[in-house]
Amino acid sequence: MFYPPGVIRMLDVDTDLAPLRCHLDAAGVDGYLIDDDASDADQRYVSGFTAPDPYQTLVTDDGVHLLVSGLEYGRAKSDADADTITRLSAYDYRELVAKYGAAEGKIHALAAFLEDHGVDSVSVPRNFPTGTADGLRDHGIEIDLESEGVVEEIRAIKTEPELEAIRESQRANEAAMARAEALIASADVAGDGTLLTTDGDPLTSERVTEEIEVTLLRHGCGLDDTIVACGVDGADPHDRGSGPLEADELIVIDIFPRSKETGYHADMTRTFARGDPGVEARRRYEVTRDAYETALEAVEAGVTGADVHDAACDVIEAAGYDTLRSDPDTETGFIHSTGHGVGLDVHEQPSVSPSGGELEDGHVISIEPGLYDPGVGGVRIEDLVVVTEDGYENLTDYRVGLEPTS
Amino acid sequence: MFYPPGVIRMLDVDTDLAPLRCHLDAAGVDGYLIDDDASDADQRYVSGFTAPDPYQTLVTDDGVHLLVSGLEYGRAKSDADADTITRLSAYDYRELVAKYGAAEGKIHALAAFLEDHGVDSVSVPRNFPTGTADGLRDHGIEIDLESEGVVEEIRAIKTEPELEAIRESQRANEAAMARAEALIASADVAGDGTLLTTDGDPLTSERVTEEIEVTLLRHGCGLDDTIVACGVDGADPHDRGSGPLEADELIVIDIFPRSKETGYHADMTRTFARGDPGVEARRRYEVTRDAYETALEAVEAGVTGADVHDAACDVIEAAGYDTLRSDPDTETGFIHSTGHGVGLDVHEQPSVSPSGGELEDGHVISIEPGLYDPGVGGVRIEDLVVVTEDGYENLTDYRVGLEPTS
Repeated sequence: MFYPPGVIRMLDVDTDLAPLRCHLDAAGVDGYLIDDDASDADQRYVSGFTAPDPYQTLVTDDGVHLLVSGLEYGRAKSDADADTITRLSAYDYRELVAKYGAAEGKIHALAAFLEDHGVDSVSVPRNFPTGTADGLRDHGIEIDLESEGVVEEIRAIKTEPELEAIRESQRANEAAMARAEALIASADVAGDGTLLTTDGDPLTSERVTEEIEVTLLRHGCGLDDTIVACGVDGADPHDRGSGPLEADELIVIDIFPRSKETGYHADMTRTFARGDPGVEARRRYEVTRDAYETALEAVEAGVTGADVHDAACDVIEAAGYDTLRSDPDTETGFIHSTGHGVGLDVHEQPSVSPSGGELEDGHVISIEPGLYDPGVGGVRIEDLVVVTEDGYENLTDYRVGLEPTS
Repeated sequence: MFYPPGVIRMLDVDTDLAPLRCHLDAAGVDGYLIDDDASDADQRYVSGFTAPDPYQTLVTDDGVHLLVSGLEYGRAKSDADADTITRLSAYDYRELVAKYGAAEGKIHALAAFLEDHGVDSVSVPRNFPTGTADGLRDHGIEIDLESEGVVEEIRAIKTEPELEAIRESQRANEAAMARAEALIASADVAGDGTLLTTDGDPLTSERVTEEIEVTLLRHGCGLDDTIVACGVDGADPHDRGSGPLEADELIVIDIFPRSKETGYHADMTRTFARGDPGVEARRRYEVTRDAYETALEAVEAGVTGADVHDAACDVIEAAGYDTLRSDPDTETGFIHSTGHGVGLDVHEQPSVSPSGGELEDGHVISIEPGLYDPGVGGVRIEDLVVVTEDGYENLTDYRVGLEPTS
């Protein structure tokens, strides 16, 4: 047995699918179809259901309709936010699989399910399985590929229950960050500069990561991974970090937990240094902090994610560092986007990057500028905020400072 | 920043892609293409690489070729098991996105990448994104949809480094199961039958799950979820369980961790009862144990997964209980398959079910018959084994017994 990660039972988020129905009208199709397992956040959001087995969600003008396996049927009826729930066995699924094989048998059952709902054309997400799309086309179903992720756009605007779930995840995140900061603050420093635990063992990235993850579990959160990256490791934003942590080096800690109860994520980054990381590292910290504060000040409904990204780039370029805006090929400086949406997925819409569109009231976004150079290390400072009409509400309550305190 | 779950760095598993190249010859196409992020185990396996950003893996007669973002390029060069690695920027990706948008821009870059490798026809997995498939078709690329998952078939046969990784995960699993069993064994029993912690609090599914997950983290494993299901909860194989655990009830504990180091999973289930769950529950435990032992005896290279499943069904039906074989619509009795492959995915090939094909030397499978009835509760007993020419090697070292001991 297994479950896809991340959620025990879907929150009742008062899903407003009106924009999805507008999309269906505009596309001139009968329905919107998702064929995935519950690891797909769009499917969880639209169906209000999560299950180990793959299932199909169909949205039509008259409701949300699920096609599930027999094992899921009971829980789907009690848990799912759907108007109708149909078992595969309603279409003699076993006989179909015996006759056509598992893949083709599923297509036959799905085609019959669509016919039952009077659907002969569907809009599908870009990641819809080609096997299912081509199979349904063979059954005469018209497949309209959506250009934008309409469900992800709907998910991007959080309702109050969703905001509360994200706040809870960020509270757990703050407890985990505090645990990590305290380990670094209270570490002894060996003669060679290695940080030591109170047992005299080297304090490693792996050890700090383990304490972060245990703290998150104690607060009801799981997570996919954590970044605790010291020195040159931290100069690669995608390096998790490994090995002993060192004094006089920048240490980037990026934690992005997921509530095991609700499935909603949080995200926060802080950068610390024990001892003196040097003048250049301190300057980079202050420039990053300035970019982070300036980007936050730029956040409000109506501005674009690109505007906010530009605000961060302006500060960093003015300080004399490269960005991907000033040099698309640079491998040092500010080499990623300023932020991203956070919700059921840890990376979702909207984007706070050169391609970022208009920010709306209720968007939850990270603001996380950084500066990277193998010779100096990495700095990144990240808060999670919700966009409001006149600015933002910061969902993060954690001190910003280079020197760790316990 | 974020990482997809499950692996720090791919194991060097001496990937043998010969069967994949045979598939390409048989299909008469130039290459095999995967377009996904590292949450796709096939892509991780073939590329020997894992990264937060989506990337593309192309297999041709002359090698494995990756198309990655600039942020991934450095690690891809050092980590990936690929013959060539190309950056998106090699195809003026930014200009393409500016001109065509993100989705179409990616298609243009991917088409240019395929052209560079002399590829104008590709075989793709059934879950290949429809957006990419249709986009490449518009660029004149022929898309051949594979009927079977050829890479998953290759992954199903484990090499020695993979078996060692799975053994390590199962060691962690045994430590976590022992922790859970000890909590149940050492619990006090309240007047109403509720199990109590030494603090006098109710011992809940959530509490036992937390201790399991902390133990796994301490042993280098993460996990998506855990099942600790008591009484009627346990009668639904997909119910995680919740609330206080009770004496005189069956408690199903199913743990399926993933090594954070290697990404390889383990899987084990035990069923316990404090006090006396009653004659019928004890009989069901013995019948399930008999089915589990009989199924294990049936395992060897050359028999089919269906044969092994039938062996378990024979025992359960002979004892007078329903199976999905005897009654496809039953909601009680043995209502799932006997087992599944375990590796980079916790559910993968081969299948130990009515559709299960021939078992081969090196297949790692779970054997997990169970009996379920809301009036009695659930019983499931599961070991993880590797198929050998003359039987199996059991990768699980954990006592089978209904009464918990600490």
